[in-house]
Amino acid sequence: MTHDTPDVLISEVGPRDGLQSVGATMPTEAKGRWIDALVAAGVREIEVASFVPPRLLPQMADAAEVVRHALRHPGLTVMALVPNRRGAENALRAGVHKLTMPVSASHAHSLANVRKTPMEMVDEVRAIARLRDEIAPGVKLEAGISTAFGCTLQGEVDEDEVIRLAAACIAAGADESGLSDTVGYANPAQVRRLFRRLRQEIGAHAGAAHMHNTRGLGLANCLAAWDEGVRTFDSSLGGLGGCPYAPGASGNVVTEDLVFMFEAMGVRTGIDLDRIVAARVPLAAGLPGEPLYGMTPDAGLPKGFAQLV
Amino acid sequence: MTHDTPDVLISEVGPRDGLQSVGATMPTEAKGRWIDALVAAGVREIEVASFVPPRLLPQMADAAEVVRHALRHPGLTVMALVPNRRGAENALRAGVHKLTMPVSASHAHSLANVRKTPMEMVDEVRAIARLRDEIAPGVKLEAGISTAFGCTLQGEVDEDEVIRLAAACIAAGADESGLSDTVGYANPAQVRRLFRRLRQEIGAHAGAAHMHNTRGLGLANCLAAWDEGVRTFDSSLGGLGGCPYAPGASGNVVTEDLVFMFEAMGVRTGIDLDRIVAARVPLAAGLPGEPLYGMTPDAGLPKGFAQLV
Repeated sequence: MTHDTPDVLISEVGPRDGLQSVGATMPTEAKGRWIDALVAAGVREIEVASFVPPRLLPQMADAAEVVRHALRHPGLTVMALVPNRRGAENALRAGVHKLTMPVSASHAHSLANVRKTPMEMVDEVRAIARLRDEIAPGVKLEAGISTAFGCTLQGEVDEDEVIRLAAACIAAGADESGLSDTVGYANPAQVRRLFRRLRQEIGAHAGAAHMHNTRGLGLANCLAAWDEGVRTFDSSLGGLGGCPYAPGASGNVVTEDLVFMFEAMGVRTGIDLDRIVAARVPLAAGLPGEPLYGMTPDAGLPKGFAQLV
Repeated sequence: MTHDTPDVLISEVGPRDGLQSVGATMPTEAKGRWIDALVAAGVREIEVASFVPPRLLPQMADAAEVVRHALRHPGLTVMALVPNRRGAENALRAGVHKLTMPVSASHAHSLANVRKTPMEMVDEVRAIARLRDEIAPGVKLEAGISTAFGCTLQGEVDEDEVIRLAAACIAAGADESGLSDTVGYANPAQVRRLFRRLRQEIGAHAGAAHMHNTRGLGLANCLAAWDEGVRTFDSSLGGLGGCPYAPGASGNVVTEDLVFMFEAMGVRTGIDLDRIVAARVPLAAGLPGEPLYGMTPDAGLPKGFAQLV
């Protein structure tokens, strides 16, 4: 057991992205037990909630309470998604370490999701960066470029626009900007091309790869991003986040399989594989009947497999 | 619609590898309709059967008949698996275009699977190459190195031994030698390392990547092999081949998802995506109740997605 810094940061988004796509509301205590199990497995960053009006997402009505619970874990980076100033202020007052904003590269998706154009969202990034400087200057601000690889509403998304938008967010005060395959359209060639351009454009401000597994390409896309130097990956335990409009299509990249892939490659995640699989128990208990994805939990680890951590 | 040679050869192994792991026996006519649908979708190579004693694999008792059916399709490469001389002779007499032999790098697996050591199997390769020269000199002979990435019986498999074994098969008269992740242990770093070494050792004799999706890494491993210059990929429609000893673990890489990944990357497979998804219908009809895997068939193609073929 060494205590070196892991090679890669797996940022768990299940409590936010996963729950957002689920019909049932998970009790606050269950969220707490799930977060505790994730931390026990070695997860160092969790997107724990979305600060949105409860009437829009009842699942997130307890956001401040969940943040408070997560803050008990020393060393854990507690993140929250905020679509606007109001949400950002609430999240900052709740004490989060990191804010993430959804800035959609697709005009159609941006309007549908946050009722603002992409450039209006850049203004929002600027306002929130200022708010952050006033209330809690140490807090990191990430702008995640949604639908960066395509959009179910408008189809193709212009790659130049994706890169321009990410650069605009950094210029507006975001600390990092990552690329999100919100609807599972990405392919490895595109992932390589876009992350290469992103890093050329904004250098060390380039953020996470947020991949969905809708067409089964989640891990291949993460591998492609890894090859391009990406070192932060969003994923969700049990692949939570299945879209109700695409039956059988799982949602986010499955944390368990992603951790297995990296660890098998000799890339240290800092996450214990047995414990991350065990974290499915409190998740399943909090969402009875919800299908969980992931192949490694069913197949088990290869014979003689030893983690490097 | 162009008629250029595709960039990559998807070799469908469902009728052999897939059916071998399934409890039920598929009627010969159903196999024929499934093969017809694969060909209609543009599949150019199919491993249609295994020439083994019917008492060991009742599923394959109609091997010669299935070969005969497949031979009706002009341009299709009709392949069969043969574990020994007896099987090879029967397959050659039936008129196959290509033989594939399972040569296991794991001593334990080799003994369990064919009751021969790996080096005894190399002798078998030599004998079958000679038989081929006598009976049907135009027929290609492939030696697939099974358990090349690890083995459920012995755990780790020595990489030097894998490469030595592949080279020995080529020296013994095989035309090509590929690497098989028989039990789904492979990871992308290992895939790159081994295929790089394989190509350094046997050059253009390096054959297919045969990946399983047991731990969800199937497509990522295919991407890794593609990066190393591999241009032939085994896969099975519906991911048929789920191991009965690993509940929930799907078998071979899913053809539909693999074709989608390559086509989305701009790599032409020659296979029509709508038609390959439609080929699931005769497969399902021939194996009632058998679960089919694959995400692309459920999720559908991205909005505005156009194949290059």
